[in-house]
Amino acid sequence: MNDMIDAATANALLKPRSIALVGISDDAAKTNGRPLRFLRAAGYPGTIYNVNPTRTEVQGEPAYPSLSALPEVPEHAFILTNSQLAIDAVEECGRLGIRVATILAGGFSESGPEGAAREQQLRDIAKRTGVRILGPSSLGVVNLREKLVLTANAAFAEPELPIGGIFCASHSGSMLGALTSRGRAKGVGFSGLISVGSETDLCIGEICESTLDDPNITGYMLFLESLSHADALRRFAIGAAQRGKPVVAYKLGRSEAAAELAVSHTGALAGEDAVAETFFRDCGIARVETLEGFLEALPLLGRLPVSKLNTTGRTPTVGVVTTTGGGAAMAVDQLGIRGVAVVPPSAETLARMAERGINVNPGGIVDLTLAGTRYDVMKAALEVMLTAPEFDLVVATVGSSARYNPDLAVKPVIDSASFSDTPLACFVVPEAPQALSLLNEAGVPSFRTPEACGDVIAAAFARRAPGELVQVTAPARGERMLNEADAYAMITPLGVPHAAYKVLNVNEPVPELGFDYPVVVKVLHDEIAHKTDVGGVILPVRDAAELAEAMGRIVDSVGQHLPELTIERVLVQAMGKGLGEVLVGFRRDADVGPLIMLAAGGILTEIYRDRAMRLAPISVETAREMVSEVKALQALAGYRGRAEGDLEAIAQAVSDFSRLALQEDCLVLEAEMNPLLVKAKGEGVVAVDALVRIA
Amino acid sequence: MNDMIDAATANALLKPRSIALVGISDDAAKTNGRPLRFLRAAGYPGTIYNVNPTRTEVQGEPAYPSLSALPEVPEHAFILTNSQLAIDAVEECGRLGIRVATILAGGFSESGPEGAAREQQLRDIAKRTGVRILGPSSLGVVNLREKLVLTANAAFAEPELPIGGIFCASHSGSMLGALTSRGRAKGVGFSGLISVGSETDLCIGEICESTLDDPNITGYMLFLESLSHADALRRFAIGAAQRGKPVVAYKLGRSEAAAELAVSHTGALAGEDAVAETFFRDCGIARVETLEGFLEALPLLGRLPVSKLNTTGRTPTVGVVTTTGGGAAMAVDQLGIRGVAVVPPSAETLARMAERGINVNPGGIVDLTLAGTRYDVMKAALEVMLTAPEFDLVVATVGSSARYNPDLAVKPVIDSASFSDTPLACFVVPEAPQALSLLNEAGVPSFRTPEACGDVIAAAFARRAPGELVQVTAPARGERMLNEADAYAMITPLGVPHAAYKVLNVNEPVPELGFDYPVVVKVLHDEIAHKTDVGGVILPVRDAAELAEAMGRIVDSVGQHLPELTIERVLVQAMGKGLGEVLVGFRRDADVGPLIMLAAGGILTEIYRDRAMRLAPISVETAREMVSEVKALQALAGYRGRAEGDLEAIAQAVSDFSRLALQEDCLVLEAEMNPLLVKAKGEGVVAVDALVRIA
Repeated sequence: MNDMIDAATANALLKPRSIALVGISDDAAKTNGRPLRFLRAAGYPGTIYNVNPTRTEVQGEPAYPSLSALPEVPEHAFILTNSQLAIDAVEECGRLGIRVATILAGGFSESGPEGAAREQQLRDIAKRTGVRILGPSSLGVVNLREKLVLTANAAFAEPELPIGGIFCASHSGSMLGALTSRGRAKGVGFSGLISVGSETDLCIGEICESTLDDPNITGYMLFLESLSHADALRRFAIGAAQRGKPVVAYKLGRSEAAAELAVSHTGALAGEDAVAETFFRDCGIARVETLEGFLEALPLLGRLPVSKLNTTGRTPTVGVVTTTGGGAAMAVDQLGIRGVAVVPPSAETLARMAERGINVNPGGIVDLTLAGTRYDVMKAALEVMLTAPEFDLVVATVGSSARYNPDLAVKPVIDSASFSDTPLACFVVPEAPQALSLLNEAGVPSFRTPEACGDVIAAAFARRAPGELVQVTAPARGERMLNEADAYAMITPLGVPHAAYKVLNVNEPVPELGFDYPVVVKVLHDEIAHKTDVGGVILPVRDAAELAEAMGRIVDSVGQHLPELTIERVLVQAMGKGLGEVLVGFRRDADVGPLIMLAAGGILTEIYRDRAMRLAPISVETAREMVSEVKALQALAGYRGRAEGDLEAIAQAVSDFSRLALQEDCLVLEAEMNPLLVKAKGEGVVAVDALVRIA
Repeated sequence: MNDMIDAATANALLKPRSIALVGISDDAAKTNGRPLRFLRAAGYPGTIYNVNPTRTEVQGEPAYPSLSALPEVPEHAFILTNSQLAIDAVEECGRLGIRVATILAGGFSESGPEGAAREQQLRDIAKRTGVRILGPSSLGVVNLREKLVLTANAAFAEPELPIGGIFCASHSGSMLGALTSRGRAKGVGFSGLISVGSETDLCIGEICESTLDDPNITGYMLFLESLSHADALRRFAIGAAQRGKPVVAYKLGRSEAAAELAVSHTGALAGEDAVAETFFRDCGIARVETLEGFLEALPLLGRLPVSKLNTTGRTPTVGVVTTTGGGAAMAVDQLGIRGVAVVPPSAETLARMAERGINVNPGGIVDLTLAGTRYDVMKAALEVMLTAPEFDLVVATVGSSARYNPDLAVKPVIDSASFSDTPLACFVVPEAPQALSLLNEAGVPSFRTPEACGDVIAAAFARRAPGELVQVTAPARGERMLNEADAYAMITPLGVPHAAYKVLNVNEPVPELGFDYPVVVKVLHDEIAHKTDVGGVILPVRDAAELAEAMGRIVDSVGQHLPELTIERVLVQAMGKGLGEVLVGFRRDADVGPLIMLAAGGILTEIYRDRAMRLAPISVETAREMVSEVKALQALAGYRGRAEGDLEAIAQAVSDFSRLALQEDCLVLEAEMNPLLVKAKGEGVVAVDALVRIA
């Protein structure tokens, strides 16, 4: 894992006192002419050195022929040349001791083997000289408080961008423009924005981490195309959670098609979306699925720190107060399809409401339409709801009055927002930019569409406080499979139960087994992972005679399939019987590190991709959440009067198994219990096959 | 089914020459004072009669004590009183021959038994006198070209609403305000808007149908809380499809929570969302899931009439041209998760592009970022894409230039939009209201968010041309189950194969069966639907002796469970064997009429709700689509080298079974083949149990 960025580098990156613009164009309208124009327009107070070997003047300012010709060593060089010249420029930066070099050009690893070689050159220079690189394919960095608009993104031609508390880091440079313009329309202001490009050296996690103690930064937006450098991202997320600074992510690659696109777009391996989802949740990062929600999420996340979330697996509950039935129903719908339950006020809450003169129909939501839209009614209803114990969050849905009479329905929302610890959010049904601005300025979580409302609230509740940092080690080159007996030896100390077994030598007589027939007989060999494929499994075997014969048949059959191997041993195992079976998997993902997975067995659960995943290791409590997420396990939870399986024992086994992540004597790359038989409630679970691959 | 509204009623509803405002308040700010104010502000050219028994003057205009005191019989009465007085007013409307009475008050069927009785009174009056009722709970009707702002919705205080081609009908009155204000911000204009309330008499389908030949109306938006009166809606949808007028629906009740809410909100039974989804698709109505998409859908639907959609079950394909990689990737993601494939340009298309000087990387999308944002480049790229045979639709994604230089990137989109029959849509990545207005004015389908872009495109492609109208008969009171033999007799003429069987008298000796043992023996009795529950099924039965004994055991067992029945017959059936099994179901839904459903058998498919549904009857082609939609059937489609099942025979059987919808001799309410065994490819399917319930 990368170390933390040192303070001098962080300053050179985000608050440089001097900048060199390498390859700056005389044409201020061109992409590589823009940074000078933008810096001057913003009133950047530091020193700017223009470097252009073919001109003595650029955009009316003097230009130097090279970096080494400058009167001082600048802190930050923005290299605007093509990719080949950029390498030379970075080399020069390194030689001169320039701390940060930002590269605009593309044409590196995303464009084939030659580009990848160029990118390796960059890495070598950074390692050799200590220069830190932002990019390639970076559109630059913006720090509004420092009047640093060091970017080639055309969107920053816009004057007087609103300054706020958000730091935004993005793999896509062009998105920074879209986010600032969309943010501006909502009254969302940024502290800084950075385009990290392909993260050859400096990565999003490190950069954000270096800003954690900046008091001006109150939250983070991450626009991601991949999960590369997830270890640094996780370290940043832990730091953000400790400081109560919320983080929201919009990550591409939700669909398989888009995941493939991301590969061709940035050269980064996008990875499976379920892994990303797991990573964000377990790092306490809210992952939203709507663009609008991305821009609207932080106020709610700030009001609902991960440390205060309910983690009992109970479905989060929301109460709704509305001045429009149809509008509220849209929000309820969007919450419901995302697993957030809108619950009715309790009888006690209704009684408290009646005491304050508000009589509403019992039912799902508190509909004030009949009461008319009045400040005092709205305020009183919200105060009662915000102090009712049955709600994790209250949503106020405001209709036409948001557009025509914000004082009647929006002001009471603002005035009630801090009435209790229960967060209050607002969905504004008509087009009402003024109401949204008022809400935003007051820091009240507010939403322009029912989809963003449902999206952000669900994403906020989905988060979990990040666990401790686990060493994420990329799979080593050398790796090997353990045979089944060695695999049991590895998992038994964790407490995971397996079916009784005995290892027999095929050339010796059958001994007492110590457990009952019938049994299953399986070939035992380090190099045979798929035992059935080579005729290496026989069952049921009913007595010692059949066992002796089965050993012979296995030796023959495996010998025919794999004549180069000598088969000396089999594993004989008691045949278990369960109400059902599950698959428990562990793997050390190249991006995000140790993952634990639970799925029901069988072909259908594979087709439905019905599984739960977490960053490992996990507690039993978290494992219980996983059990409740696997839909097929409803069949073992007393579904339609069926016998109940031992779901608690599954949770215990999954939690135990997840501690493979911490194994210190050897690095476990992958492990699986498939199947783990699930017995009746109270009777436990038992692994009847196991597989472990170690580094 | 209701008849079509006559022309005089339609005119009185939407273009009345005279109006009575019954119970109009002197206070123009009050809900029941607004209509007069709004009509005057809009310059309504017809005659307005104010009716108020307690005043001679209202808002400065003369008032009459009652409807019968008016100097003429007005065409339309808007009744603004409470619910009890409203009944009297409607009675008077009927007596005087007023054609349409619109009722503002709530307090009818949604508020318990007394309200339901009041609603029945309204129905009786309508039937007896011929007056047509809009509402109760209607906020009124707006026809902008006629300057008719006959509504109590506060949002219509807004001056100069833009007039356009959209007719919008809504169960929720308050949503009309939100839709006009949101539409206005997008440059979307309405022709008319109507709040239908609880549809006691006039329903959405009838009302919209009566406007179909209005040349000013180019498309329809439906905001629905339920699918009541689906038959009229379907008739309207067929008429709209015939005229090429697009229809988009936003329907509440996607989540179960919201479905329950809809019940308490309007008193209408919301019904299962999957039924609604089926209904819309098979009626050619695009059902969107985003509010933004609801307002943005019609231009695309207009460019892509249902009659021209590919119905081969092939995944629709989209090509993407972009000036921003990150922005395009968002759209690709949102299309991908909704099953619309973004495909790369073919080699030939890339070559044609190169001929016009545009060189792009092969891959998913045509990224013009490197070429720079130029009118000629964008236009040429779009022209090549729009004439490439591999795309059903082309999406242009426009970045920052949409905000700063619409001429460079938005104008070429507008200028290319009609270049070929392939529709062109535009997703605008930054905040760029001006660009959206330009696109909208030019009629180019355009989207403000990636979610709406994906939503609308997927909803457009999901539609199917509506079939002929099938009589939808509500389940009669009298109904009965057929026994299994009678059920086979009903379905055999349709061509659906079942396993060979023979009906035996339990008191007679076992005859030759005409098919091989082993067999299954099942009790046969009209009043026993759940045979297994009463010990009425025995299998396997291997020979005649076992069969005789099995008959005796069944008589005993059923006799113990149901001593009041005399068991005389059993059904003996050949035992089939298949690679898998499916459930084929038919039912006559109270709202939408005949439905055909296909699901894989077993508990997991129940848990996953994995099934396909269509309005019945259907063609084999449509049944093939259903087969491809049931995920579990992948297991019978050669998944991971497994044996393939006869999927074609499933499709044939489903199509055949769906013709139960047309059965003329008796009305089939519900029927099921469960299971239908699926044999190996080419070997067919065979029903081994059947159930039919008839009226």
